[in-house]
Amino acid sequence: MATDTHTCTNTADNYSCHASPVALIDHVAIKHNIARLRQLLTYGQSNHTPRIWAVAKADAYGHTLELAYPGLCSADGLAVLTLDDVRHCRALGWTGPILAMSPQISRAELKDPVLYPLHLIIDHAEQLAHLAALNPRFAPHVWLRFRASLNHAGFNQTDYRKAYAFLQTALREGRLAGLGHLQHYASAEIAEQLRKERQAFQALIGGMPGSVCSENSAALLSDHAAAAATDWVRSGIAVYGISPLHGMSGHDLGLRPAMVLQAPVYGIQVLGAGEFLGYNSRFQATRQTRVGLVRCGYAHGYPRGLAEGCEVMVYGRKATIIGRVSMDTLTIDLSDLPDVSCNAMVTLWGTHELPIETVARQADTIPAQLCTALTARVPRLAMP
Amino acid sequence: MATDTHTCTNTADNYSCHASPVALIDHVAIKHNIARLRQLLTYGQSNHTPRIWAVAKADAYGHTLELAYPGLCSADGLAVLTLDDVRHCRALGWTGPILAMSPQISRAELKDPVLYPLHLIIDHAEQLAHLAALNPRFAPHVWLRFRASLNHAGFNQTDYRKAYAFLQTALREGRLAGLGHLQHYASAEIAEQLRKERQAFQALIGGMPGSVCSENSAALLSDHAAAAATDWVRSGIAVYGISPLHGMSGHDLGLRPAMVLQAPVYGIQVLGAGEFLGYNSRFQATRQTRVGLVRCGYAHGYPRGLAEGCEVMVYGRKATIIGRVSMDTLTIDLSDLPDVSCNAMVTLWGTHELPIETVARQADTIPAQLCTALTARVPRLAMP
Repeated sequence: MATDTHTCTNTADNYSCHASPVALIDHVAIKHNIARLRQLLTYGQSNHTPRIWAVAKADAYGHTLELAYPGLCSADGLAVLTLDDVRHCRALGWTGPILAMSPQISRAELKDPVLYPLHLIIDHAEQLAHLAALNPRFAPHVWLRFRASLNHAGFNQTDYRKAYAFLQTALREGRLAGLGHLQHYASAEIAEQLRKERQAFQALIGGMPGSVCSENSAALLSDHAAAAATDWVRSGIAVYGISPLHGMSGHDLGLRPAMVLQAPVYGIQVLGAGEFLGYNSRFQATRQTRVGLVRCGYAHGYPRGLAEGCEVMVYGRKATIIGRVSMDTLTIDLSDLPDVSCNAMVTLWGTHELPIETVARQADTIPAQLCTALTARVPRLAMP
Repeated sequence: MATDTHTCTNTADNYSCHASPVALIDHVAIKHNIARLRQLLTYGQSNHTPRIWAVAKADAYGHTLELAYPGLCSADGLAVLTLDDVRHCRALGWTGPILAMSPQISRAELKDPVLYPLHLIIDHAEQLAHLAALNPRFAPHVWLRFRASLNHAGFNQTDYRKAYAFLQTALREGRLAGLGHLQHYASAEIAEQLRKERQAFQALIGGMPGSVCSENSAALLSDHAAAAATDWVRSGIAVYGISPLHGMSGHDLGLRPAMVLQAPVYGIQVLGAGEFLGYNSRFQATRQTRVGLVRCGYAHGYPRGLAEGCEVMVYGRKATIIGRVSMDTLTIDLSDLPDVSCNAMVTLWGTHELPIETVARQADTIPAQLCTALTARVPRLAMP
């Protein structure tokens, strides 16, 4: 039967790979990125090099801890949110330091030997009592958090000094493995703001001995020298190969993306000139238009609020998203790609030609939002 | 130690409920909503009442099939995307009709007896060959899909008539259990567009016998009488208690929300006048401001691109989100709610006072995007 409509048919061996989008996770890229950060931190410096926390919260920024782990383990430590996350890292085999960045702690909880070597961010007074009562068998390294101008958590200047004095005593009594200074920037990607925030923190901690952990991806990538003078850096987004700096891609910074999002073409539809496509007829064809129906939509976490003209890659060439992204489908213009048909895999982000930074800009968001917001409907698979 | 900063401490019995946001799923509300739709469809009509497909794709619009099922099973049939989804519904115990809306079919696949009673949307020519070769033991009911102006999938007018003739033959030969007409609206929430699309479909199918399935939530809620004249309606968003119509909430339509999203306060921070909060210092306090740190962020699927002033509910009162939503945290102004402290559960959407429709409007999106895009980091629990 002649038709201008056709859709993929299923065969036993291609079913699973064509029913949904898939995120391919490249742990080799993660390893490369950590090596790249280490290189930047040592460049032109003395023999002091900061250690690197690979931030792996939000299930390794959506890459999943399991698949990212073989790359993450080239860092000096893993940084997660909760003590449950710490146990998850231990279950994967990690025996090195783990930083719990927003832990709910109790004396009983801290007596779990599997947690150690454990680093804790201490950002409120109630935590101090728990630390005072510990015995040396379960001595965490603690990082006192200055709330800085982010103000999400942490001590103000007055309370910071009091807490520091309290923890110094605990350290001397052997109830802590170490004591350091920590803060998180509110505007690390804006040079002038970064400088001000850094100065405020240095002014606070001057004269209080302790290691320093203050630099994140954006800070260390924009000022290697300042980061190299600290003791630990925390890097999340850059570890996954993504640039935190405006107007630059990970590639520009010597990083490699660790996630490629792909989705299958499940149908082809041909529109005549003047015909509409998608909800609320957002797209109208000005010529005969060959449309690829791609199995990825907002229910997979793909951004619905995308600007016109966002691109995808298929068979190494670019195609444009047309019409509104719907729950399970996005539609692309294949008029100039007649050889692309059903079952073709379309790359939605994660290559040098189509970095996630570009898609994020088109969606008026940040790359971290895109990769962490993929839903359970997107299988994550190890890059073959 | 005196401080203006404090955060929740963990006790054994409250840990699990305070480590993350949670979506509470109310299957009784789903049952109510289906009954409400049935009531609307029978109002003022003869004794013909259309049957209702409860659309359960995207894991029951993010509610999860498991938790929604006790409510969904009061519908006449379940509508999902793929044959794998059909099997999932069978595993939950559903023995009634299931509509596969975007199936990849093959002869071998269709011989699985567990799929039946099976309804299939047929929207492309390649599917026809598979149907022609079936034997009566595995006879699906097929719904021929007109592509209409949505144009995502389906036959144009010429091909529709050809496919209909082909399927009529298969029906007469006993290889199909039934044959019906189906379309999906592009603009069902705009009355004039709806009327045009409905007329175009009726003009096409006039003179071709068969049952009709053309109305979705928006269409049936805005024109009960037209929907009541069809044989099956497909309702997704309304089944979950959410309005598809501009400027109305589910409550306005007699529906009850089936998902409440809640998240715990994990810390309190007090800002002085002039102090900033959050990334890029989006919020600046104009007075002393008591800030609640709430454990829900964009990595949970909460919208990052939220307008200023979006509200939440806590202890039955409203509070306002201030500052930018970050990966794991959103921040609310508790200055006027001094009794709200750590461990308080904050409602983010899903009540009469704070419908998801309101949050969607503030995030410049639609409610279906919000509920389907919650990530695996948000446990779904049955409403107690």
